[in-house]
Amino acid sequence: MPSDDQHTSQPLFNQFASDNYAGICPEAWHAMEEANHGYVSSYGDDSWTERACESIRRLFATDCQVFFVFNGTAANSLALASLCRSYHSIVCHDMAHIETDECGAPEFFSNGTKILHTNGTNGKLDLDAVELAITRRSDIHYPKPRVLSMAQSTELGTVYTPGEIGAACDLAHSHGLRVHMDGARFANAVATLGVTPAETSWKAGVDVLCLGGAKNGMAIGEAVVFFDRLLAEEFEYRCKQAGQLASKMRFISAPWIGMLESGAWLRNAENANRQARLLADELARIPGVRLMYPCQANAVFTEMPEQATTALRAAGWHFYSFIGTGGARFMCSWLTTEQDVRNLVAAVRQACGEQ
Amino acid sequence: MPSDDQHTSQPLFNQFASDNYAGICPEAWHAMEEANHGYVSSYGDDSWTERACESIRRLFATDCQVFFVFNGTAANSLALASLCRSYHSIVCHDMAHIETDECGAPEFFSNGTKILHTNGTNGKLDLDAVELAITRRSDIHYPKPRVLSMAQSTELGTVYTPGEIGAACDLAHSHGLRVHMDGARFANAVATLGVTPAETSWKAGVDVLCLGGAKNGMAIGEAVVFFDRLLAEEFEYRCKQAGQLASKMRFISAPWIGMLESGAWLRNAENANRQARLLADELARIPGVRLMYPCQANAVFTEMPEQATTALRAAGWHFYSFIGTGGARFMCSWLTTEQDVRNLVAAVRQACGEQ
Amino acid sequence: MPSDDQHTSQPLFNQFASDNYAGICPEAWHAMEEANHGYVSSYGDDSWTERACESIRRLFATDCQVFFVFNGTAANSLALASLCRSYHSIVCHDMAHIETDECGAPEFFSNGTKILHTNGTNGKLDLDAVELAITRRSDIHYPKPRVLSMAQSTELGTVYTPGEIGAACDLAHSHGLRVHMDGARFANAVATLGVTPAETSWKAGVDVLCLGGAKNGMAIGEAVVFFDRLLAEEFEYRCKQAGQLASKMRFISAPWIGMLESGAWLRNAENANRQARLLADELARIPGVRLMYPCQANAVFTEMPEQATTALRAAGWHFYSFIGTGGARFMCSWLTTEQDVRNLVAAVRQACGEQ
Amino acid sequence: MPSDDQHTSQPLFNQFASDNYAGICPEAWHAMEEANHGYVSSYGDDSWTERACESIRRLFATDCQVFFVFNGTAANSLALASLCRSYHSIVCHDMAHIETDECGAPEFFSNGTKILHTNGTNGKLDLDAVELAITRRSDIHYPKPRVLSMAQSTELGTVYTPGEIGAACDLAHSHGLRVHMDGARFANAVATLGVTPAETSWKAGVDVLCLGGAKNGMAIGEAVVFFDRLLAEEFEYRCKQAGQLASKMRFISAPWIGMLESGAWLRNAENANRQARLLADELARIPGVRLMYPCQANAVFTEMPEQATTALRAAGWHFYSFIGTGGARFMCSWLTTEQDVRNLVAAVRQACGEQ
Repeated sequence: MPSDDQHTSQPLFNQFASDNYAGICPEAWHAMEEANHGYVSSYGDDSWTERACESIRRLFATDCQVFFVFNGTAANSLALASLCRSYHSIVCHDMAHIETDECGAPEFFSNGTKILHTNGTNGKLDLDAVELAITRRSDIHYPKPRVLSMAQSTELGTVYTPGEIGAACDLAHSHGLRVHMDGARFANAVATLGVTPAETSWKAGVDVLCLGGAKNGMAIGEAVVFFDRLLAEEFEYRCKQAGQLASKMRFISAPWIGMLESGAWLRNAENANRQARLLADELARIPGVRLMYPCQANAVFTEMPEQATTALRAAGWHFYSFIGTGGARFMCSWLTTEQDVRNLVAAVRQACGEQ
Repeated sequence: MPSDDQHTSQPLFNQFASDNYAGICPEAWHAMEEANHGYVSSYGDDSWTERACESIRRLFATDCQVFFVFNGTAANSLALASLCRSYHSIVCHDMAHIETDECGAPEFFSNGTKILHTNGTNGKLDLDAVELAITRRSDIHYPKPRVLSMAQSTELGTVYTPGEIGAACDLAHSHGLRVHMDGARFANAVATLGVTPAETSWKAGVDVLCLGGAKNGMAIGEAVVFFDRLLAEEFEYRCKQAGQLASKMRFISAPWIGMLESGAWLRNAENANRQARLLADELARIPGVRLMYPCQANAVFTEMPEQATTALRAAGWHFYSFIGTGGARFMCSWLTTEQDVRNLVAAVRQACGEQ
Repeated sequence: MPSDDQHTSQPLFNQFASDNYAGICPEAWHAMEEANHGYVSSYGDDSWTERACESIRRLFATDCQVFFVFNGTAANSLALASLCRSYHSIVCHDMAHIETDECGAPEFFSNGTKILHTNGTNGKLDLDAVELAITRRSDIHYPKPRVLSMAQSTELGTVYTPGEIGAACDLAHSHGLRVHMDGARFANAVATLGVTPAETSWKAGVDVLCLGGAKNGMAIGEAVVFFDRLLAEEFEYRCKQAGQLASKMRFISAPWIGMLESGAWLRNAENANRQARLLADELARIPGVRLMYPCQANAVFTEMPEQATTALRAAGWHFYSFIGTGGARFMCSWLTTEQDVRNLVAAVRQACGEQ
Repeated sequence: MPSDDQHTSQPLFNQFASDNYAGICPEAWHAMEEANHGYVSSYGDDSWTERACESIRRLFATDCQVFFVFNGTAANSLALASLCRSYHSIVCHDMAHIETDECGAPEFFSNGTKILHTNGTNGKLDLDAVELAITRRSDIHYPKPRVLSMAQSTELGTVYTPGEIGAACDLAHSHGLRVHMDGARFANAVATLGVTPAETSWKAGVDVLCLGGAKNGMAIGEAVVFFDRLLAEEFEYRCKQAGQLASKMRFISAPWIGMLESGAWLRNAENANRQARLLADELARIPGVRLMYPCQANAVFTEMPEQATTALRAAGWHFYSFIGTGGARFMCSWLTTEQDVRNLVAAVRQACGEQ
């Protein structure tokens, strides 16, 4: 392994494209390192995995059932498939990740379950729209609504309060639906709200949570957390058949121990949120730049003149933009520093013709 | 992360259950470590991944198309799904891993493609049986054979010669079938044969190879290698939809660089094979112990009195056994030492009532 | 079979709910009767089926490939599945039947292909919206558009001109998409346009047409017509596996002979259209009643005071209504008579408080 | 419709290939005719369908839930899919129709459920083999057995006694499996046994029966009969999504009324069985001809010199043969006459060189 490779080890300092551009945080890394000794049983039948499960149960203060899978696509899709039959439907926000960025994975894993999308401001569900989606049709020519899926934090960087989650869950349950929470950035929401993980999940009525690891600082892996253990029945078979059972499971379970027992999961989220907050505040002060949504987690969405985003990109900055609109998304992560933020702010200022 | 944990850090010294009980070899580890600096683009759009692909192209001395996925279940199932439509069928040995140990994953990923299994000694395909399976039916009431799947090395630890692979591929191609190779232990076969990877894959006619990483010393990940690039069309979408696209791809691609550029891939396989060979030779000398199949890679299958396997298990040894038969499988890995082997031999000798 | 059963033989005279409330027209019936003699080979390997295929080839004046399946759900879903892989997407109007009334069948048959819906007035595709849907995303996190699906006549009873179809097909083809036409009421569109079936299908660029039989006067069955024979490759396996291969095929193929050779297919459609036209004209003259869409085939959509629809329903009339809106759909069929129409008009007039 | 067509109306007198070469029996025909008056609600919401369901409930003397679908492929596959998740498996005989002649339909409808086949003489399940198939594996790498599927009568023309069915059901239930019965020729088994339909189905423990209509004398259609109504939950959605909900349902439900209320279902089966019995007895007396399996329903399997089957086929007789073996299958139907049988016997005698 050449150590002087200039090409591949060149880090991208100027990036806010995604919170998954950051690597593995020290706590996750050390746990992997510690797990890498000698022989360990495979497929999750090992003490690392059991201890990781226990850590998650402790985190949520309940005897939930936990499964570790490779990524968020699989976590959400498998959880949804376990709640649905192919002729069911899933109600979610029309900007939900499962609708916009999974290349049809939920439909694939569930063999055709349809996603019904509803509108709502700031990426959050509007309960009237949800109820309409649930009740609009009850004939067999339309797939039967079976799950309400909500993201915490949302795809647009906003956060539900426990009360809002509770209301959504009550509505769903009153119509016989189950509630799935896409928690790819669940830690960021907890950090924002200052509540316990339990309060913003099962205590509010969530049935299944997909808890994000990668965006929180791990290399690979998400946890599917069933608060109702009955729903978890045979889920291990589903994971296996769908190519989501790691043979050397310890390397995706041990990092959870490192993150949870050390508190890094929350510290990482807090840092990402803090930098996003700073970025939002600073960008909002630049003439011509407007925040598109409240910055409540680790994402900042702005509108600025399209030539500004073009200039910014030309200067080597990485971020998602929305073609022809001047809209841009900047993500902060556990790795983002205040200096990173100040560099970006200066660059935006310059791109906008300030200074 | 407590360092004094007695429970989880207890390695299982007495194990020959699987080559995936071993952890991450140093070369793979260091590559991950090196990749863990700064920000890197996600989903494989990064220089580590490109360099890993190049390493594999160099290994096979051809301009193949390469995709990294999380595990062997997914690698095989996705590759097969890309070759088939749901009404096709896959011909394989009845002891093939895709038939016996994937919980229906090939059928799931391909939405119903049927597996037709044929017999053959020592886990290797019998070409007469293969031809019969292909030609027996040609009506639409039976799924149309579309792929011949073969494993190298096989599930029973035997190895095909390049000539045997060539004959199988010729047969398959002459009937319009494509050839898939399950190479979870491809390196072990190469080490045994002393040929180039090209000679035992595409030069012999293989269309798609699933190249194993985990059993060779990596934490996670396999490579799907399309020798016919046309077959790889849109495979990236398939991976994404099926939950097999890593966001922080560098951590499953960089280890391939570490393994291939250092030569560890072959050294690891050679060690595993050498220890298996030693184990086979030693066990065969114990009265009452009989080798079930030729030991040609890193697996040793033996028959011994059932009370011997029971005693061995009682003494804390881990291995797969076949209930009611006295059959046992012992796997060696990159981590297995000669001392490990000698300890097992002594234990078997004792379990068999020898001194 | 008791002939005096009062319960089941009671026809519903007061119905305009669907064109599939009508039974089997005489020409289809007699063909079934004629086919019901002696032994005939099964699964479509019979002369009735061959002659029916020939009739369809003659109808379209081209050497198309034809398959008979049981219903429109299957015809559309199988055709779409044959054009797509699971990670593809289908662009259609948001009021398309495949989106609104198939309970997720297209997603099921194709194992997850996503439907992207676009807007457009009067149930017809807006080509700018179509182009946006095709080009909006080109990353692998979004299913790749592969098919443009259009209905002729549309779900809202409107009809595309050959020129409009040609423009849509050109747009689709220029982006590498194939064109599927849902022709459940294709005959009605042909009757309206006064063009040949060829002009409003393959000559305008349609790749696959699902040609409706049931709504045109048959008991059961639709034809999947591939104008590009390459696309039909192995479609017979797909039908078989999906439960759409009739054993006594002659009974769903022979009626096509009866319909096409006698010209009943067009006469039936003409009658349905004529009665719908009459109904639309008469209803439009009633104060308080407004036509929602141009009446171009056999459907009439009206808005009237909600108490009027309630009164109408209370009087025993069957029709689809749109809750809380006063919207109502009335369908005419081959069986609808001018007297039926006049009865309905009188009833609406009364329900609206007119004399 | 030309009445003088010589080509298509030529019946095949010389056929014993399949019981689905026969057409529609008079009782089924007249019921269709009677149902073809006026307007009737679609999708099964009509009095014909309700009356047909009642007829089936009366036939089985229990309050079962009944669904009408288009063919046996769909009936069996949908029933199995409703009992299974994709990671389950189905145990059946290795000569079962669902294994040998459905082109992977069960795997397709259930999105990957695997079929485990077991051996057994005369096409009947061997319960020791069944138990082994159920218990052999209990790890998650193998699909979990969930259904025992048995055919009555079997694919080889043999029949289970109620006691045998009871024993199989007891075994299945004791391991937590459900029992599915493929009753494509259920009527033939009832005719043979001289018991009530209840005795050879739910009273013996069968959970779901697919009751054959086409081979019994109908044009199209099978009934899925759930004896445990809980298992039928949402089955109507499954039928709809899978393209198995007829719009003009009355035409596949009314024939059941005609068949059941008139007793034709049993008379038809009795005739087919009687002719098969005669055929078997007569063929067995021809030197060189041997019965392969006991003739217990409407199928006769014989071995004869291969040149005899060749000669027979050359003389225009239609039947299934087993290449290179001299094996042949002859099926009788409701339409088969004693004269048909005598003609065949004479022809076989001649083909075998007897006078």
